[in-house]
Amino acid sequence: MSVVRDKANCRISALKSLLCVGLDSDPEKIPAVFLPYENPVLEFNRAVIRATSDVAIAYKLNTAFYEARGIAGLLDMEKTLGSIPDVCMTIADAKRADIGNTSKMYAQAFFDHWSFDALTVAPYMGFDSLEPFFAYEDKLLFVLCLTSNEGSVDFEEQAMQDGRPLYRSVLDKVASWNRNGNGGVVVGATKSALLSEIRCEAPNLFLLIPGVGAQGGSLEDTVHFGVDANRQSAVINVSRSLIYPSGSFSGIDDYERAVAAEASKMHSVMKAIL
Amino acid sequence: MSVVRDKANCRISALKSLLCVGLDSDPEKIPAVFLPYENPVLEFNRAVIRATSDVAIAYKLNTAFYEARGIAGLLDMEKTLGSIPDVCMTIADAKRADIGNTSKMYAQAFFDHWSFDALTVAPYMGFDSLEPFFAYEDKLLFVLCLTSNEGSVDFEEQAMQDGRPLYRSVLDKVASWNRNGNGGVVVGATKSALLSEIRCEAPNLFLLIPGVGAQGGSLEDTVHFGVDANRQSAVINVSRSLIYPSGSFSGIDDYERAVAAEASKMHSVMKAIL
Repeated sequence: MSVVRDKANCRISALKSLLCVGLDSDPEKIPAVFLPYENPVLEFNRAVIRATSDVAIAYKLNTAFYEARGIAGLLDMEKTLGSIPDVCMTIADAKRADIGNTSKMYAQAFFDHWSFDALTVAPYMGFDSLEPFFAYEDKLLFVLCLTSNEGSVDFEEQAMQDGRPLYRSVLDKVASWNRNGNGGVVVGATKSALLSEIRCEAPNLFLLIPGVGAQGGSLEDTVHFGVDANRQSAVINVSRSLIYPSGSFSGIDDYERAVAAEASKMHSVMKAIL
Repeated sequence: MSVVRDKANCRISALKSLLCVGLDSDPEKIPAVFLPYENPVLEFNRAVIRATSDVAIAYKLNTAFYEARGIAGLLDMEKTLGSIPDVCMTIADAKRADIGNTSKMYAQAFFDHWSFDALTVAPYMGFDSLEPFFAYEDKLLFVLCLTSNEGSVDFEEQAMQDGRPLYRSVLDKVASWNRNGNGGVVVGATKSALLSEIRCEAPNLFLLIPGVGAQGGSLEDTVHFGVDANRQSAVINVSRSLIYPSGSFSGIDDYERAVAAEASKMHSVMKAIL
Protein backbone atom coordinates (compact mmCIF):
# COMPACT_ATOMS: atom_id res chain seq x y z
CA MET A 1 0.00 0.00 0.00
CA SER A 2 1.18 3.47 -0.89
CA VAL A 3 2.96 5.36 1.90
CA VAL A 4 1.58 8.60 0.47
CA ARG A 5 -1.97 7.27 0.49
CA ASP A 6 -1.58 6.27 4.15
CA LYS A 7 -0.13 9.67 5.04
CA ALA A 8 -3.05 11.47 3.38
CA ASN A 9 -5.71 9.20 4.92
CA CYS A 10 -4.20 9.52 8.36
CA ARG A 11 -4.40 13.31 8.14
CA ILE A 12 -7.92 13.23 6.66
CA SER A 13 -9.16 11.28 9.69
CA ALA A 14 -7.24 13.39 12.18
CA LEU A 15 -8.39 16.77 10.83
CA LYS A 16 -11.74 15.73 9.32
CA SER A 17 -10.69 17.71 6.27
CA LEU A 18 -10.39 16.93 2.54
CA LEU A 19 -8.92 20.28 1.61
CA CYS A 20 -6.41 20.36 -1.22
CA VAL A 21 -5.09 23.85 -1.88
CA GLY A 22 -4.41 24.51 -5.56
CA LEU A 23 -1.35 26.71 -6.07
CA ASP A 24 -2.34 27.95 -9.55
CA SER A 25 -0.30 31.04 -8.87
CA ASP A 26 -0.65 33.55 -11.67
CA PRO A 27 1.63 36.63 -11.49
CA GLU A 28 -1.20 38.68 -13.04
CA LYS A 29 -3.69 37.71 -10.35
CA ILE A 30 -1.75 37.74 -7.11
CA PRO A 31 -2.63 40.65 -4.75
CA ALA A 32 -0.65 43.87 -5.02
CA VAL A 33 0.94 43.44 -1.56
CA PHE A 34 3.21 40.72 -2.97
CA LEU A 35 4.43 42.66 -6.00
CA PRO A 36 7.29 44.61 -4.32
CA TYR A 37 9.06 41.33 -3.44
CA GLU A 38 11.84 39.88 -5.57
CA ASN A 39 9.85 36.65 -6.07
CA PRO A 40 6.19 37.68 -5.77
CA VAL A 41 4.90 34.20 -6.67
CA LEU A 42 7.07 32.50 -4.06
CA GLU A 43 6.08 34.98 -1.33
CA PHE A 44 2.44 34.55 -2.32
CA ASN A 45 2.68 30.73 -2.20
CA ARG A 46 4.34 30.85 1.20
CA ALA A 47 1.59 33.11 2.53
CA VAL A 48 -1.10 30.74 1.19
CA ILE A 49 0.70 27.79 2.81
CA ARG A 50 1.01 29.57 6.18
CA ALA A 51 -2.67 30.53 6.05
CA THR A 52 -3.95 27.03 5.24
CA SER A 53 -1.51 24.37 6.49
CA ASP A 54 -3.43 23.72 9.74
CA VAL A 55 -6.43 22.44 7.73
CA ALA A 56 -4.94 21.35 4.40
CA ILE A 57 -4.45 17.69 3.49
CA ALA A 58 -2.62 18.44 0.25
CA TYR A 59 -1.12 21.13 -1.94
CA LYS A 60 -1.54 20.82 -5.68
CA LEU A 61 0.95 22.68 -7.84
CA ASN A 62 -0.35 23.23 -11.34
CA THR A 63 2.88 22.87 -13.31
CA ALA A 64 1.67 25.02 -16.23
CA PHE A 65 1.69 28.12 -14.06
CA TYR A 66 5.36 27.56 -13.23
CA GLU A 67 6.46 26.35 -16.69
CA ALA A 68 4.93 29.48 -18.26
CA ARG A 69 7.82 31.48 -16.78
CA GLY A 70 10.52 28.97 -17.70
CA ILE A 71 13.47 28.41 -15.36
CA ALA A 72 12.43 31.27 -13.01
CA GLY A 73 9.00 29.69 -12.57
CA LEU A 74 10.45 26.24 -11.91
CA LEU A 75 12.80 27.67 -9.29
CA ASP A 76 9.71 29.13 -7.57
CA MET A 77 8.08 25.68 -7.78
CA GLU A 78 11.13 24.07 -6.18
CA LYS A 79 11.26 26.59 -3.33
CA THR A 80 7.50 26.35 -2.81
CA LEU A 81 7.80 22.57 -2.39
CA GLY A 82 10.39 23.20 0.32
CA SER A 83 7.87 25.35 2.23
CA ILE A 84 5.11 22.71 2.38
CA PRO A 85 4.96 20.81 5.71
CA ASP A 86 5.90 17.12 5.39
CA VAL A 87 2.55 15.98 6.79
CA CYS A 88 0.80 17.40 3.73
CA MET A 89 0.68 15.56 0.39
CA THR A 90 2.28 17.39 -2.56
CA ILE A 91 0.57 16.84 -5.91
CA ALA A 92 2.12 17.77 -9.25
CA ASP A 93 -0.85 18.56 -11.47
CA ALA A 94 1.06 17.92 -14.66
CA LYS A 95 -1.24 15.62 -16.69
CA ARG A 96 1.68 13.83 -18.31
CA ALA A 97 1.91 10.42 -20.11
CA ASP A 98 3.70 9.17 -23.22
CA ILE A 99 5.15 5.90 -24.55
CA GLY A 100 6.75 3.79 -21.80
CA ASN A 101 10.39 4.93 -22.03
CA THR A 102 9.21 8.55 -21.98
CA SER A 103 6.73 8.14 -19.12
CA LYS A 104 9.61 6.64 -17.16
CA MET A 105 11.44 9.96 -17.61
CA TYR A 106 8.39 11.94 -16.46
CA ALA A 107 8.13 9.69 -13.39
CA GLN A 108 11.80 10.40 -12.66
CA ALA A 109 11.18 14.12 -13.06
CA PHE A 110 8.25 14.39 -10.67
CA PHE A 111 8.89 11.57 -8.19
CA ASP A 112 12.71 11.39 -8.04
CA HIS A 113 13.93 14.83 -9.06
CA TRP A 114 11.24 17.12 -7.60
CA SER A 115 10.13 14.60 -4.93
CA PHE A 116 6.40 15.15 -5.35
CA ASP A 117 4.17 12.69 -3.46
CA ALA A 118 1.58 12.42 -6.22
CA LEU A 119 1.06 13.19 -9.90
CA THR A 120 -1.84 13.63 -12.32
CA VAL A 121 -1.55 11.70 -15.62
CA ALA A 122 -3.57 11.41 -18.85
CA PRO A 123 -5.08 8.05 -19.91
CA TYR A 124 -5.37 8.37 -23.72
CA MET A 125 -2.28 6.29 -24.62
CA GLY A 126 -3.26 3.34 -22.40
CA PHE A 127 -1.61 1.02 -19.93
CA ASP A 128 2.03 1.00 -21.02
CA SER A 129 2.02 4.81 -20.88
CA LEU A 130 0.95 4.67 -17.21
CA GLU A 131 2.85 1.60 -16.02
CA PRO A 132 6.09 3.50 -15.22
CA PHE A 133 4.11 5.73 -12.85
CA PHE A 134 2.23 2.84 -11.19
CA ALA A 135 5.66 1.27 -10.57
CA TYR A 136 6.33 3.88 -7.85
CA GLU A 137 4.47 1.92 -5.17
CA ASP A 138 4.97 4.50 -2.43
CA LYS A 139 3.49 7.35 -4.46
CA LEU A 140 -0.04 8.20 -5.53
CA LEU A 141 -1.22 8.54 -9.11
CA PHE A 142 -4.33 10.38 -10.33
CA VAL A 143 -5.50 9.41 -13.82
CA LEU A 144 -7.82 11.87 -15.60
CA CYS A 145 -11.27 10.33 -15.68
CA LEU A 146 -14.18 12.81 -15.77
CA THR A 147 -13.03 16.41 -15.77
CA SER A 148 -14.92 19.55 -14.77
CA ASN A 149 -14.58 21.50 -18.03
CA GLU A 150 -17.09 21.87 -20.88
CA GLY A 151 -14.89 19.87 -23.25
CA SER A 152 -15.55 16.70 -21.22
CA VAL A 153 -18.50 16.12 -23.59
CA ASP A 154 -16.21 15.86 -26.62
CA PHE A 155 -14.62 12.52 -25.70
CA GLU A 156 -14.89 11.64 -21.98
CA GLU A 157 -18.70 11.53 -22.02
CA GLN A 158 -19.07 10.00 -25.48
CA ALA A 159 -20.68 6.55 -25.49
CA MET A 160 -18.60 3.51 -26.30
CA GLN A 161 -20.00 0.43 -28.05
CA ASP A 162 -21.43 -0.93 -24.78
CA GLY A 163 -23.39 2.30 -24.33
CA ARG A 164 -21.31 3.50 -21.39
CA PRO A 165 -19.22 6.67 -21.66
CA LEU A 166 -15.46 6.60 -22.26
CA TYR A 167 -14.71 7.84 -18.73
CA ARG A 168 -16.35 4.69 -17.30
CA SER A 169 -14.02 2.59 -19.39
CA VAL A 170 -11.08 4.62 -18.04
CA LEU A 171 -12.37 4.15 -14.49
CA ASP A 172 -12.71 0.36 -14.87
CA LYS A 173 -9.26 0.01 -16.37
CA VAL A 174 -7.56 2.20 -13.75
CA ALA A 175 -9.27 0.13 -11.02
CA SER A 176 -7.93 -3.06 -12.64
CA TRP A 177 -4.41 -1.57 -12.99
CA ASN A 178 -4.35 -0.51 -9.32
CA ARG A 179 -2.48 -3.59 -8.11
CA ASN A 180 -0.09 -1.57 -5.94
CA GLY A 181 -2.87 0.38 -4.23
CA ASN A 182 -1.35 3.64 -5.45
CA GLY A 183 -4.00 4.49 -8.04
CA GLY A 184 -6.57 7.23 -8.12
CA VAL A 185 -8.62 9.28 -10.56
CA VAL A 186 -9.48 12.91 -11.22
CA VAL A 187 -13.25 13.50 -11.12
CA GLY A 188 -14.77 16.96 -11.44
CA ALA A 189 -17.05 18.19 -8.66
CA THR A 190 -19.32 19.89 -11.17
CA LYS A 191 -21.11 16.56 -11.77
CA SER A 192 -22.06 15.33 -8.31
CA ALA A 193 -24.50 12.61 -9.45
CA LEU A 194 -21.74 11.12 -11.57
CA LEU A 195 -19.24 11.50 -8.71
CA SER A 196 -21.51 9.30 -6.58
CA GLU A 197 -21.67 6.64 -9.33
CA ILE A 198 -17.88 6.73 -9.74
CA ARG A 199 -17.32 6.28 -6.00
CA CYS A 200 -19.67 3.23 -5.97
CA GLU A 201 -17.96 1.74 -9.00
CA ALA A 202 -14.44 2.27 -7.69
CA PRO A 203 -14.56 1.97 -3.89
CA ASN A 204 -10.77 1.57 -3.60
CA LEU A 205 -9.46 4.42 -5.73
CA PHE A 206 -8.28 7.70 -4.24
CA LEU A 207 -10.19 10.65 -5.74
CA LEU A 208 -8.79 14.05 -6.62
CA ILE A 209 -11.81 16.30 -7.06
CA PRO A 210 -11.39 19.75 -8.64
CA GLY A 211 -14.21 22.06 -9.68
CA VAL A 212 -15.53 23.34 -6.33
CA GLY A 213 -15.56 27.14 -6.06
CA ALA A 214 -14.75 29.10 -9.24
CA GLN A 215 -15.97 26.20 -11.39
CA GLY A 216 -19.29 25.91 -9.52
CA GLY A 217 -19.43 22.45 -7.84
CA SER A 218 -21.21 22.11 -4.48
CA LEU A 219 -18.82 21.53 -1.57
CA GLU A 220 -21.36 19.62 0.56
CA ASP A 221 -22.29 17.14 -2.22
CA THR A 222 -18.65 16.68 -3.10
CA VAL A 223 -17.65 15.75 0.46
CA HIS A 224 -20.68 13.50 0.83
CA PHE A 225 -20.19 11.58 -2.42
CA GLY A 226 -16.42 11.73 -2.68
CA VAL A 227 -15.20 9.80 0.37
CA ASP A 228 -14.86 6.01 0.61
CA ALA A 229 -16.45 3.72 3.22
CA ASN A 230 -13.87 4.88 5.80
CA ARG A 231 -14.64 8.55 5.06
CA GLN A 232 -11.18 8.86 3.56
CA SER A 233 -9.43 8.56 0.15
CA ALA A 234 -10.52 11.84 -1.40
CA VAL A 235 -9.21 15.36 -1.58
CA ILE A 236 -11.16 18.33 -2.87
CA ASN A 237 -9.10 20.91 -4.68
CA VAL A 238 -9.90 24.57 -4.26
CA SER A 239 -7.78 27.13 -6.00
CA ARG A 240 -9.00 30.42 -7.40
CA SER A 241 -11.90 30.95 -4.94
CA LEU A 242 -9.52 30.41 -2.00
CA ILE A 243 -6.21 31.97 -3.03
CA TYR A 244 -7.63 35.06 -4.75
CA PRO A 245 -10.12 36.45 -2.20
CA SER A 246 -11.86 39.64 -3.31
CA GLY A 247 -10.92 42.98 -1.80
CA SER A 248 -7.58 44.68 -1.29
CA PHE A 249 -5.17 44.00 1.54
CA SER A 250 -3.17 46.31 3.77
CA GLY A 251 -0.34 43.76 4.08
CA ILE A 252 0.55 40.08 3.80
CA ASP A 253 -0.87 39.41 7.29
CA ASP A 254 -4.16 40.85 6.20
CA TYR A 255 -4.20 38.66 3.07
CA GLU A 256 -3.36 35.58 5.16
CA ARG A 257 -6.25 36.30 7.51
CA ALA A 258 -8.69 36.42 4.56
CA VAL A 259 -7.39 33.12 3.13
CA ALA A 260 -7.33 31.45 6.56
CA ALA A 261 -10.94 32.52 7.17
CA GLU A 262 -12.08 31.05 3.85
CA ALA A 263 -10.12 27.81 4.44
CA SER A 264 -11.61 27.53 7.90
CA LYS A 265 -15.13 28.02 6.51
CA MET A 266 -14.56 25.18 4.03
CA HIS A 267 -13.06 23.02 6.76
CA SER A 268 -16.16 23.56 8.92
CA VAL A 269 -18.41 22.31 6.12
CA MET A 270 -16.20 19.24 5.64
CA LYS A 271 -15.93 18.54 9.38
CA ALA A 272 -19.70 18.66 9.84
CA ILE A 273 -20.17 15.98 7.19
CA LEU A 274 -17.17 13.79 8.08
CA MET B 1 -2.43 29.81 -42.65
CA SER B 2 0.25 28.89 -40.18
CA VAL B 3 3.65 30.44 -40.88
CA VAL B 4 5.27 27.36 -39.35
CA ARG B 5 3.31 25.02 -41.61
CA ASP B 6 4.40 27.02 -44.65
CA LYS B 7 8.03 26.97 -43.50
CA ALA B 8 7.96 23.21 -43.05
CA ASN B 9 6.20 22.54 -46.37
CA CYS B 10 8.57 24.80 -48.23
CA ARG B 11 11.55 22.85 -46.89
CA ILE B 12 9.85 19.47 -47.51
CA SER B 13 9.47 20.33 -51.21
CA ALA B 14 12.95 21.82 -51.52
CA LEU B 15 14.77 18.87 -49.90
CA LYS B 16 12.32 16.08 -50.72
CA SER B 17 12.67 15.01 -47.11
CA LEU B 18 10.22 14.37 -44.28
CA LEU B 19 12.89 13.76 -41.66
CA CYS B 20 12.15 14.85 -38.11
CA VAL B 21 15.03 14.13 -35.75
CA GLY B 22 13.90 13.19 -32.26
CA LEU B 23 16.21 14.53 -29.56
CA ASP B 24 15.22 11.99 -26.88
CA SER B 25 18.63 12.52 -25.37
CA ASP B 26 19.19 10.15 -22.46
CA PRO B 27 22.40 10.70 -20.42
CA GLU B 28 22.62 6.94 -19.94
CA LYS B 29 22.55 6.19 -23.65
CA ILE B 30 24.71 8.86 -25.26
CA PRO B 31 28.05 7.61 -26.59
CA ALA B 32 31.10 7.70 -24.31
CA VAL B 33 32.87 10.36 -26.41
CA PHE B 34 30.48 12.99 -25.04
CA LEU B 35 30.86 12.12 -21.37
CA PRO B 36 34.03 14.16 -20.61
CA TYR B 37 32.22 17.40 -21.52
CA GLU B 38 30.64 19.66 -18.90
CA ASN B 39 27.21 19.31 -20.57
CA PRO B 40 27.29 15.91 -22.31
CA VAL B 41 23.64 16.11 -23.42
CA LEU B 42 24.09 19.55 -24.96
CA GLU B 43 27.30 18.52 -26.81
CA PHE B 44 25.52 15.39 -27.99
CA ASN B 45 22.49 17.34 -29.26
CA ARG B 46 24.73 19.81 -31.08
CA ALA B 47 26.56 16.95 -32.78
CA VAL B 48 23.27 15.36 -33.86
CA ILE B 49 22.08 18.71 -35.23
CA ARG B 50 25.35 19.30 -37.17
CA ALA B 51 25.15 15.78 -38.60
CA THR B 52 21.53 16.04 -39.76
CA SER B 53 20.58 19.66 -40.42
CA ASP B 54 21.20 19.45 -44.18
CA VAL B 55 18.40 16.88 -44.54
CA ALA B 56 16.17 17.51 -41.50
CA ILE B 57 12.81 19.27 -41.76
CA ALA B 58 12.23 19.34 -38.02
CA TYR B 59 13.73 18.62 -34.61
CA LYS B 60 11.47 17.18 -31.95
CA LEU B 61 12.56 17.66 -28.35
CA ASN B 62 10.92 15.18 -26.03
CA THR B 63 10.42 17.36 -22.96
CA ALA B 64 10.41 14.40 -20.52
CA PHE B 65 14.10 13.74 -21.21
CA TYR B 66 14.95 17.31 -20.20
CA GLU B 67 12.49 17.61 -17.30
CA ALA B 68 13.90 14.41 -15.77
CA ARG B 69 17.03 16.40 -14.83
CA GLY B 70 15.15 19.45 -13.55
CA ILE B 71 16.60 22.92 -14.12
CA ALA B 72 19.89 21.56 -15.56
CA GLY B 73 17.95 19.59 -18.17
CA LEU B 74 15.80 22.56 -19.12
CA LEU B 75 18.89 24.73 -19.54
CA ASP B 76 20.19 22.07 -21.98
CA MET B 77 16.83 22.23 -23.78
CA GLU B 78 17.07 26.01 -24.04
CA LYS B 79 20.63 25.93 -25.41
CA THR B 80 19.75 23.11 -27.80
CA LEU B 81 16.93 25.22 -29.25
CA GLY B 82 19.45 27.97 -29.90
CA SER B 83 21.55 25.55 -31.98
CA ILE B 84 18.77 24.51 -34.38
CA PRO B 85 18.84 26.38 -37.72
CA ASP B 86 15.86 28.71 -38.22
CA VAL B 87 14.80 26.93 -41.41
CA CYS B 88 13.99 23.81 -39.40
CA MET B 89 10.77 23.43 -37.43
CA THR B 90 11.18 22.95 -33.66
CA ILE B 91 8.60 20.66 -32.03
CA ALA B 92 8.07 20.39 -28.26
CA ASP B 93 6.87 16.84 -27.75
CA ALA B 94 5.19 17.64 -24.45
CA LYS B 95 1.70 16.10 -24.77
CA ARG B 96 0.13 18.79 -22.61
CA ALA B 97 -3.53 19.92 -22.20
CA ASP B 98 -5.69 20.90 -19.23
CA ILE B 99 -8.69 23.15 -18.55
CA GLY B 100 -8.67 26.35 -20.61
CA ASN B 101 -6.95 28.76 -18.22
CA THR B 102 -4.19 26.18 -17.64
CA SER B 103 -3.72 25.26 -21.30
CA LYS B 104 -3.25 28.99 -21.91
CA MET B 105 -0.28 28.84 -19.52
CA TYR B 106 1.18 25.80 -21.31
CA ALA B 107 0.80 27.63 -24.64
CA GLN B 108 2.67 30.59 -23.14
CA ALA B 109 5.39 28.26 -21.88
CA PHE B 110 6.08 26.51 -25.17
CA PHE B 111 5.17 29.15 -27.76
CA ASP B 112 6.05 32.44 -26.03
CA HIS B 113 8.68 31.56 -23.45
CA TRP B 114 10.64 28.78 -25.20
CA SER B 115 9.63 29.89 -28.73
CA PHE B 116 8.94 26.43 -30.10
CA ASP B 117 7.32 26.32 -33.55
CA ALA B 118 5.05 23.39 -32.75
CA LEU B 119 3.70 21.37 -29.83
CA THR B 120 2.11 17.97 -29.22
CA VAL B 121 -1.06 17.97 -27.09
CA ALA B 122 -3.44 15.36 -25.64
CA PRO B 123 -7.13 15.28 -26.67
CA TYR B 124 -8.86 13.61 -23.68
CA MET B 125 -10.26 16.80 -22.09
CA GLY B 126 -11.82 18.09 -25.34
CA PHE B 127 -12.06 21.31 -27.26
CA ASP B 128 -11.75 23.96 -24.55
CA SER B 129 -8.52 22.28 -23.40
CA LEU B 130 -7.05 22.69 -26.92
CA GLU B 131 -8.52 26.06 -27.94
CA PRO B 132 -5.75 28.15 -26.29
CA PHE B 133 -3.19 26.28 -28.45
CA PHE B 134 -5.21 26.60 -31.67
CA ALA B 135 -5.35 30.35 -30.95
CA TYR B 136 -1.66 30.62 -31.90
CA GLU B 137 -2.38 30.88 -35.63
CA ASP B 138 1.26 31.04 -36.69
CA LYS B 139 2.22 27.85 -34.88
CA LEU B 140 1.50 24.17 -35.53
CA LEU B 141 -0.33 21.85 -33.15
CA PHE B 142 -0.18 18.05 -33.15
CA VAL B 143 -3.03 16.35 -31.29
CA LEU B 144 -2.47 12.73 -30.22
CA CYS B 145 -4.64 10.54 -32.44
CA LEU B 146 -3.35 6.98 -32.99
CA THR B 147 -0.09 6.30 -31.20
CA SER B 148 2.53 3.65 -31.89
CA ASN B 149 2.58 1.95 -28.47
CA GLU B 150 0.81 -1.24 -27.36
CA GLY B 151 -1.48 0.69 -25.02
CA SER B 152 -3.22 2.25 -28.03
CA VAL B 153 -5.65 -0.71 -27.84
CA ASP B 154 -6.82 0.30 -24.36
CA PHE B 155 -8.73 3.42 -25.39
CA GLU B 156 -7.64 4.82 -28.79
CA GLU B 157 -8.70 1.72 -30.73
CA GLN B 158 -11.81 0.94 -28.67
CA ALA B 159 -15.07 1.18 -30.63
CA MET B 160 -17.46 4.02 -29.94
CA GLN B 161 -21.22 3.68 -30.29
CA ASP B 162 -21.06 4.21 -34.07
CA GLY B 163 -18.64 1.27 -34.33
CA ARG B 164 -15.65 3.43 -35.22
CA PRO B 165 -12.67 3.63 -32.90
CA LEU B 166 -12.09 6.56 -30.54
CA TYR B 167 -9.09 7.80 -32.54
CA ARG B 168 -11.38 8.36 -35.57
CA SER B 169 -13.60 10.54 -33.44
CA VAL B 170 -10.50 12.49 -32.34
CA LEU B 171 -9.43 12.82 -35.97
CA ASP B 172 -12.84 14.13 -37.12
CA LYS B 173 -13.04 16.65 -34.29
CA VAL B 174 -9.49 17.93 -34.80
CA ALA B 175 -10.22 18.37 -38.52
CA SER B 176 -13.34 20.38 -37.62
CA TRP B 177 -11.42 22.50 -35.08
CA ASN B 178 -8.67 23.31 -37.60
CA ARG B 179 -10.15 26.64 -38.64
CA ASN B 180 -6.79 28.43 -38.50
CA GLY B 181 -5.01 25.82 -40.61
CA ASN B 182 -2.55 25.19 -37.77
CA GLY B 183 -3.81 21.75 -36.78
CA GLY B 184 -2.21 18.35 -37.09
CA VAL B 185 -2.28 14.91 -35.50
CA VAL B 186 0.19 12.34 -34.20
CA VAL B 187 -0.21 8.99 -35.98
CA GLY B 188 2.10 6.07 -35.33
CA ALA B 189 3.95 4.54 -38.29
CA THR B 190 3.52 1.06 -36.86
CA LYS B 191 0.01 0.91 -38.37
CA SER B 192 0.54 1.84 -42.03
CA ALA B 193 -2.88 0.67 -43.28
CA LEU B 194 -4.51 2.91 -40.69
CA LEU B 195 -2.13 5.74 -41.58
CA SER B 196 -3.42 5.58 -45.14
CA GLU B 197 -7.06 5.74 -43.94
CA ILE B 198 -6.26 8.68 -41.68
CA ARG B 199 -4.61 10.61 -44.52
CA CYS B 200 -7.68 10.06 -46.73
CA GLU B 201 -10.03 11.12 -43.97
CA ALA B 202 -8.06 14.25 -43.06
CA PRO B 203 -6.43 15.56 -46.24
CA ASN B 204 -5.66 18.96 -44.71
CA LEU B 205 -4.05 18.04 -41.39
CA PHE B 206 -0.30 18.02 -40.88
CA LEU B 207 0.90 14.62 -39.67
CA LEU B 208 3.63 13.93 -37.12
CA ILE B 209 4.51 10.27 -37.54
CA PRO B 210 6.66 8.53 -34.92
CA GLY B 211 7.35 4.81 -34.76
CA VAL B 212 9.78 4.25 -37.64
CA GLY B 213 13.04 2.61 -36.59
CA ALA B 214 13.25 1.30 -32.98
CA GLN B 215 9.47 0.91 -32.85
CA GLY B 216 9.35 -1.07 -36.13
CA GLY B 217 7.31 0.94 -38.68
CA SER B 218 8.28 0.75 -42.40
CA LEU B 219 9.86 3.95 -43.68
CA GLU B 220 8.72 3.43 -47.29
CA ASP B 221 5.06 2.86 -46.38
CA THR B 222 5.12 5.77 -44.00
CA VAL B 223 6.40 8.21 -46.64
CA HIS B 224 3.98 6.84 -49.23
CA PHE B 225 0.87 7.03 -47.05
CA GLY B 226 1.80 10.01 -44.88
CA VAL B 227 2.04 12.90 -47.33
CA ASP B 228 -0.87 14.97 -48.62
CA ALA B 229 -1.85 15.57 -52.28
CA ASN B 230 1.07 18.03 -52.64
CA ARG B 231 3.51 15.50 -51.21
CA GLN B 232 3.88 17.71 -48.16
CA SER B 233 2.35 18.17 -44.67
CA ALA B 234 3.99 15.25 -42.89
CA VAL B 235 7.14 14.68 -40.91
CA ILE B 236 8.46 11.28 -39.86
CA ASN B 237 10.19 11.23 -36.52
CA VAL B 238 13.23 9.05 -36.03
CA SER B 239 14.99 9.07 -32.74
CA ARG B 240 16.70 6.08 -31.11
CA SER B 241 17.66 4.28 -34.34
CA LEU B 242 19.29 7.47 -35.67
CA ILE B 243 20.88 9.16 -32.65
CA TYR B 244 22.22 6.00 -30.99
CA PRO B 245 24.03 4.17 -33.81
CA SER B 246 25.67 0.90 -32.75
CA GLY B 247 29.44 0.67 -32.35
CA SER B 248 31.94 2.82 -30.52
CA PHE B 249 33.39 6.09 -31.77
CA SER B 250 36.92 7.47 -31.75
CA GLY B 251 35.66 11.04 -31.42
CA ILE B 252 32.72 13.36 -31.99
CA ASP B 253 33.56 13.66 -35.70
CA ASP B 254 33.40 9.90 -36.00
CA TYR B 255 29.98 9.83 -34.27
CA GLU B 256 28.70 12.60 -36.54
CA ARG B 257 29.76 10.67 -39.65
CA ALA B 258 27.78 7.62 -38.47
CA VAL B 259 24.66 9.71 -37.78
CA ALA B 260 25.01 11.67 -41.04
CA ALA B 261 25.30 8.40 -42.99
CA GLU B 262 22.13 7.01 -41.42
CA ALA B 263 20.24 10.29 -41.98
CA SER B 264 21.40 10.35 -45.58
CA LYS B 265 20.21 6.77 -46.08
CA MET B 266 16.76 7.67 -44.78
CA HIS B 267 16.71 10.82 -46.90
CA SER B 268 17.48 8.75 -50.02
CA VAL B 269 14.49 6.50 -49.35
CA MET B 270 12.26 9.55 -48.88
CA LYS B 271 13.63 11.34 -51.95
CA ALA B 272 13.03 8.34 -54.18
CA ILE B 273 9.34 8.26 -53.19
CA LEU B 274 8.74 12.04 -53.13
